Amino acid sequence: MERVALSDLMAEYGMALDEDRLEEWVELFEEECDYRVVTRENTEQGLPNVLMWCDNKNMLRDRVESYRQVNEYNPHYDRHVIGPLRLLAEKDSVATFEAAYSLFQTDLEGNSRLFSVGRYRVEARVAGGVAKLKSVLVVADTGAIPSLLATPI
Amino acid sequence: MERVALSDLMAEYGMALDEDRLEEWVELFEEECDYRVVTRENTEQGLPNVLMWCDNKNMLRDRVESYRQVNEYNPHYDRHVIGPLRLLAEKDSVATFEAAYSLFQTDLEGNSRLFSVGRYRVEARVAGGVAKLKSVLVVADTGAIPSLLATPI
Amino acid sequence: MERVALSDLMAEYGMALDEDRLEEWVELFEEECDYRVVTRENTEQGLPNVLMWCDNKNMLRDRVESYRQVNEYNPHYDRHVIGPLRLLAEKDSVATFEAAYSLFQTDLEGNSRLFSVGRYRVEARVAGGVAKLKSVLVVADTGAIPSLLATPI
Repeated sequence: MERVALSDLMAEYGMALDEDRLEEWVELFEEECDYRVVTRENTEQGLPNVLMWCDNKNMLRDRVESYRQVNEYNPHYDRHVIGPLRLLAEKDSVATFEAAYSLFQTDLEGNSRLFSVGRYRVEARVAGGVAKLKSVLVVADTGAIPSLLATPI
Repeated sequence: MERVALSDLMAEYGMALDEDRLEEWVELFEEECDYRVVTRENTEQGLPNVLMWCDNKNMLRDRVESYRQVNEYNPHYDRHVIGPLRLLAEKDSVATFEAAYSLFQTDLEGNSRLFSVGRYRVEARVAGGVAKLKSVLVVADTGAIPSLLATPI
Repeated sequence: MERVALSDLMAEYGMALDEDRLEEWVELFEEECDYRVVTRENTEQGLPNVLMWCDNKNMLRDRVESYRQVNEYNPHYDRHVIGPLRLLAEKDSVATFEAAYSLFQTDLEGNSRLFSVGRYRVEARVAGGVAKLKSVLVVADTGAIPSLLATPI
């Protein structure tokens, strides 16, 4: 059962972003949460650079709200294709797992291109068959994040 | 059990297309079925354009048969990589779900490229551990579908 | 349970390669095992060309060891995104299945590109909830494998 809940969570994570349901994406997180985007290169060199960082749910809400006010400047469609989950630990109803992602962007002319690949490292709390995000660390292999990384990965 | 049946169905859906087993792909559908390809842009603008539409299984059979007669003109390999399922509803043994897809094409020189990304919206009937397709709506983010969309997505 | 073990196995397969844990990747195989990379074009024409072939675990160990000695010449990050499993057979605790893969590479400047797409055909032995690889046949749609195929696919 738990695996299904975790897989559902990641399916909804990607779909919510791809369908521009950003407010619903925020609701996948617990109030006390952490969302962070780093590049793999920085991580492996022990560098502290963080491309996006929200360390509680209100920061995620603010982020989405400000995105809503400027989202006309780089209109595009996102599409996440997420790989199978790799479970790392389970403790006190919190599961830690990783999953590879590929993220494609399509412009208004309908041209699609590879935008970013990397992996998620996720802590999720499962209760009553439903999983909520405690933390998401996005480690992007792709270093060049254009457009000020307007939308979450 | 049902989730496994749905996941198996989509794995076979992609593999049947990729291995040019189009007749077996047709057999994944029920007699009364609907297969449709639209672009996301048209859908979001409420436009009625449909790139491919078969509203029963005989139309799918005809489509594959005519493809067999002309398939020499754009020889290529397809490869679908499909993401996790997002279950939307279950009612009377019919499950409605979505899944993101990435579709790559490889030409005869062995060069691969991104061909299309988007999502499937699927209704499937599960009976005895086996799932059959009632309807598949392909919503393609990628707008430019070259080559007259000879093969299904 | 078995499906989860097989899915975990493939998640770890991709992640071990992507995180450069090649020695751990080798440990996913049984002592008597077979790992082979072929192109789809050769396979469909009945040609015997094999791009990489290790027919026991010691050969895999050697392969990884020699890679460790030369890996400075083409530094890059790999990222596998693997699709859902298609179960073909189960017999005497050995499962045979296929899965589509997309493999992306990122260079040291952080530029990502599609490197290879294709499918795995896998035989895995499941015992005590854990699956081990008996054989992996990589059938690559992408024909041009640059860089002498230094890392496994």
